Amino acid sequence: MTAVRHARLFDEADPLRLSGGGTLAPVDVAYTTCGDLSPARDNAVFIAHALTGDAEATEWWPTMVGPGRPVDTDRFFVVCANLLGGCRGTTGPSSTDPATGRAWGLDFPLISVADLVTVHRRLIAHLGIERLYAAVGGSLGGMQVLQWAADAPGQAERAVLVAASARLSAQNIALSTIARQAILRDPAFHGGRYPDHGVVPADGLSVARMLGHVTYVSEPGLEAKFGRDRRGAPGFGIDFEIESYLDHQARSFVDRFDALSYLYLSRLLDYFDPFTSEEFAERIRDTRFQVISFDSDWRFSTSHSVLIEKELRRVGLDVERHEIASSWGHDSFLLDPPGYLDLVRTFLNDRTGAGS
Amino acid sequence: MTAVRHARLFDEADPLRLSGGGTLAPVDVAYTTCGDLSPARDNAVFIAHALTGDAEATEWWPTMVGPGRPVDTDRFFVVCANLLGGCRGTTGPSSTDPATGRAWGLDFPLISVADLVTVHRRLIAHLGIERLYAAVGGSLGGMQVLQWAADAPGQAERAVLVAASARLSAQNIALSTIARQAILRDPAFHGGRYPDHGVVPADGLSVARMLGHVTYVSEPGLEAKFGRDRRGAPGFGIDFEIESYLDHQARSFVDRFDALSYLYLSRLLDYFDPFTSEEFAERIRDTRFQVISFDSDWRFSTSHSVLIEKELRRVGLDVERHEIASSWGHDSFLLDPPGYLDLVRTFLNDRTGAGS
Repeated sequence: MTAVRHARLFDEADPLRLSGGGTLAPVDVAYTTCGDLSPARDNAVFIAHALTGDAEATEWWPTMVGPGRPVDTDRFFVVCANLLGGCRGTTGPSSTDPATGRAWGLDFPLISVADLVTVHRRLIAHLGIERLYAAVGGSLGGMQVLQWAADAPGQAERAVLVAASARLSAQNIALSTIARQAILRDPAFHGGRYPDHGVVPADGLSVARMLGHVTYVSEPGLEAKFGRDRRGAPGFGIDFEIESYLDHQARSFVDRFDALSYLYLSRLLDYFDPFTSEEFAERIRDTRFQVISFDSDWRFSTSHSVLIEKELRRVGLDVERHEIASSWGHDSFLLDPPGYLDLVRTFLNDRTGAGS
Repeated sequence: MTAVRHARLFDEADPLRLSGGGTLAPVDVAYTTCGDLSPARDNAVFIAHALTGDAEATEWWPTMVGPGRPVDTDRFFVVCANLLGGCRGTTGPSSTDPATGRAWGLDFPLISVADLVTVHRRLIAHLGIERLYAAVGGSLGGMQVLQWAADAPGQAERAVLVAASARLSAQNIALSTIARQAILRDPAFHGGRYPDHGVVPADGLSVARMLGHVTYVSEPGLEAKFGRDRRGAPGFGIDFEIESYLDHQARSFVDRFDALSYLYLSRLLDYFDPFTSEEFAERIRDTRFQVISFDSDWRFSTSHSVLIEKELRRVGLDVERHEIASSWGHDSFLLDPPGYLDLVRTFLNDRTGAGS
């Protein structure tokens, strides 16, 4: 367990300027660091987390981050922060709005992937880091890595995007909308004012999580693990093992995650569509990309990675792309299907910088 | 529009004996007939509807049933009934429990595909029909057709199963469970007693329908129709066109369908697994099968149809199976992708009976 630290990165005198206009202050960030920053300050790796992650990368991504792992904490200085809009110590919609003294609720501004990255960049400046050896992220984490490469050209020497997307499909948006509707329609949501009522929209958040979870795993994966096994009695309660599993997922999620953060962070994925702007890719330089997808991921299938590769190559960037065989769908990025971690390790061990 | 007729098929003196034990009475059935029964009574075709259909087959399946259609109402005597457990005129969980004078609610017994078929068989007997020229159904309708072939060997000369399954996968069950959870967790559900409260669990039923609907269409289909088109403003309301579409689907569904029926009818799909009993297929005789799937159907993919074919062939039955190219997913069975309707027409025109 790494100690979570906190820093106020923006305040009223120096607010966060949001990509969609307006400002936000204060912005406090919860983050962890692992390992030691080298005297040359050239071994920092930033880990960007996905929708429901947090600052403790060695906890939620132990296959990737730790001593001897591809992101080797014996070698790298690893930084990970809870996302803006989150609920694990970084300012989000359940934080206090200084203007009212109450939780922001739906008065929290809409935020974008670019805003998440602005906060990450301020954090590494706060830590005295000018350049990153690498930025690494899966799913929404990979989207932040991509945005970072465009917003701070050359700041990250290497970018690892796993199971990411640069353009959600109509089906992606539909599934996220349904999850959000489950929250928004829960009477305990109280129009986002549930913190004032001392309740949480646990039922809506449970349905959202169960739906999200099913889209993060593959049909063959579920079939192999649960099939039609049963544990209960016929009826509308928990009978099939898959139902017990989903119920467990929902309960543990309600204990650790906030419904407003779910709304804000899931919504910014829908709006992320950077390559519609011609200049987005053209801003990127001096970053080498590794783009990885999993063949059973039906949330962000390989076609999403192919789009990213195509757009980056179009402007002459250095990209390697891999599709990994794995039966565990989107969540494969958190696991260790054969070949996956070795590819990342090799990519990170290659000292040839794109800008050198 | 065909007139919907009503018949009391079971009563206290002659109750419906349920496959899971126990009885149910009264059972009233809403049904339609189209066309004329031939003097030889050898031209009856039964249409079995899917989860949310009703007795008016020419309304919800106009591509398949009507004058000059594959199930040609100029030639066949076409019978279709609202399912047991439904909410469009046939006895279901929102009907009155004679023991209490109130709606059954969750005191309605669990029903199975076999129970639906028992009611259908009583209906055709009531209409003076001993044999069916064919039984035709899509999705849950196809499952009824399969069950019918086993429960009344030889009664249906031809069986058409479109986009059906004989064994739901863990993912199938998971998605249905999540839809049911949205209903069960809606406070307006009142433990199934919402008819007593004069309300309906509209929010839960809306979420259930939106989720169901996304699983009935394919990702490429949604992409071609909606893509990332927008109509609103950024935020948590309706912005993307796909969101407007889902909202419309939800609203129209709440107006026409009952939450308790959704629970009962979706749950019986989960439990349908007839081929685990060795004798199920062995009971079938003198029925020719046509089994059709669609390549973009990810709810009941072709593998479900392959399983049905394999189990029927194992006992020497006459089966033809086809996979149709269609971009519209599970709902393709209600549409007219090239080749589909002609295959059914040809199959139904072949006068060579399996038993002749």
